[in-house]
Amino acid sequence: MKSILVTIPVNESHKARLEAVAGPNPVIYVPVGEVTEEQIRSANVIIGNVPAKLIGASENLELLQLESAGTDAYIVPGVLAKKTVLCNATGAYNRAVSEHAMALTMMLIKKLYLYRDSQNESVWSDHGTVSSPVGATVLVVGLGDIGMRYAKMMKAMGAYVIGVKRRAGACPEGIDELVQTDAIDTVLPRADIVFSILPNTKGTVHFYTEERFRLMKDSAVFINCGRGNAVDGEVLLSALQSGQIAAAAADVTDPEPLPAESPLWRQKNMVITPHVAGGFHLPHTFECIVDIACENLEHHLKGEDYRNVIDFETGYKK
Amino acid sequence: MKSILVTIPVNESHKARLEAVAGPNPVIYVPVGEVTEEQIRSANVIIGNVPAKLIGASENLELLQLESAGTDAYIVPGVLAKKTVLCNATGAYNRAVSEHAMALTMMLIKKLYLYRDSQNESVWSDHGTVSSPVGATVLVVGLGDIGMRYAKMMKAMGAYVIGVKRRAGACPEGIDELVQTDAIDTVLPRADIVFSILPNTKGTVHFYTEERFRLMKDSAVFINCGRGNAVDGEVLLSALQSGQIAAAAADVTDPEPLPAESPLWRQKNMVITPHVAGGFHLPHTFECIVDIACENLEHHLKGEDYRNVIDFETGYKK
Repeated sequence: MKSILVTIPVNESHKARLEAVAGPNPVIYVPVGEVTEEQIRSANVIIGNVPAKLIGASENLELLQLESAGTDAYIVPGVLAKKTVLCNATGAYNRAVSEHAMALTMMLIKKLYLYRDSQNESVWSDHGTVSSPVGATVLVVGLGDIGMRYAKMMKAMGAYVIGVKRRAGACPEGIDELVQTDAIDTVLPRADIVFSILPNTKGTVHFYTEERFRLMKDSAVFINCGRGNAVDGEVLLSALQSGQIAAAAADVTDPEPLPAESPLWRQKNMVITPHVAGGFHLPHTFECIVDIACENLEHHLKGEDYRNVIDFETGYKK
Repeated sequence: MKSILVTIPVNESHKARLEAVAGPNPVIYVPVGEVTEEQIRSANVIIGNVPAKLIGASENLELLQLESAGTDAYIVPGVLAKKTVLCNATGAYNRAVSEHAMALTMMLIKKLYLYRDSQNESVWSDHGTVSSPVGATVLVVGLGDIGMRYAKMMKAMGAYVIGVKRRAGACPEGIDELVQTDAIDTVLPRADIVFSILPNTKGTVHFYTEERFRLMKDSAVFINCGRGNAVDGEVLLSALQSGQIAAAAADVTDPEPLPAESPLWRQKNMVITPHVAGGFHLPHTFECIVDIACENLEHHLKGEDYRNVIDFETGYKK
């Protein structure tokens, strides 16, 4: 018998689905805020992002199915035992995050943030020319499921999409041009829109350097929905203040929450949303997470291959 | 010889194109703010929205090519002589306005206006669930070029699109369902998103009544990029305050500019942009207007049929 611990906020219909898969194996449901170290240590399967420090490399834990796409807290040495299979929820956030990023992109290029500010002053004032996705060159940095879905939306609206990806490979359908991440400097000067959906890995911390912002057009907009530490806050602020780029939007900051005293909040051509692109803000996301959890629980009990297994070395899907 | 008056802000390359079409006929360029009654009265062809009151049903005027899609000021009796052919710039605003409307739609359903307000208070706060265009039912009220382009974008993002059109006809490609304007009440209760792009005609003044807002879902969002008088400001305010609909955005108001004392400015779930969706905010728009002007000038000089001829009775394209 396998002991299954579920900490994601499931409803009765989700429970029925999980239990149908679990069969005779006991399933306990505990909200993540109330979960105890003992419950975690005795579980063979955990579904949910339990606090990493409570896992303590438990040898009982065979499968940890995260509710997130990010895996950073769990690939730190000492958190998981070697035998534990770690799976994330890649794919579940695809719709929510790509749409949020697209909405932010349109908000920037149509200057809707400036119009909202004018509205709040009851002022009818024209903020000048705007741009269009038609004919725009869009760099999608990080070409996982979210990046691909964003790319397809932008291409459907008439953009030319350059995908930026760690590993070489054939140019995927729906992408006009593919470059490897280490060659990004060759394409940054061409971009009208730079969308970053890089995860938090060794190679992505402060990826967007001062030099890289200097390579961008002064009319370019930058959107970050990956991880906040892909760009140093002061470097971004300086790029915005000096006019190296026209505007930026970020759903992620470093640190989070962004402290009230950060000057980024008050930078006029910066748009901030508080890490809400994903989460459970779109009801569809949670349904996808339950789908993945049921599938991986079933595979675990039957000894089959998993979906979304994470490589501890890279933090990416194997 | 035909005397041609151009009041749109053309550059040298536009002038060269117009003059190539004009041939030996004299072309004079006067900014619309400086144009005199005499210049208007002696012109045989005018390209640009000259003040209607200065035209005085001039018998010299054979062709008036507007730079706008709206024709309201020019179809009033007494403005144009019977012989004058009136053409608008339908089509030129298609890209700019449909994209602005789509950007407003995404801003509403992703709650980006609330996040901008929180940002201006340096507050990291979560505004709850959002919705997606995937599976949303979108009503496009007014199915001209702009409405069709908006419809196609929303459909590409996964929406189910119901077109609402004055005249019966076959359901156009890219539209899932078509209803006639006078049957709109049968589909309003199904809509998650209502996009209005109605022109200003006898039949469209205060089209969105209190009763029609009551028919909408309380989760619906309403976007108006047509004419401000399609909805009475107080009716809209009341629908927003009472929760009959979730949020609204308008690029057009009645009157314009919206007076600073209007409570609509300060209504939290209302987004206002100051009639900037069209105009010359997107450089592409002006290129399209010059294309239409060159084409119609050529057709006029050669005695051929025009593009975008307006029916004085309806204000619509014939």
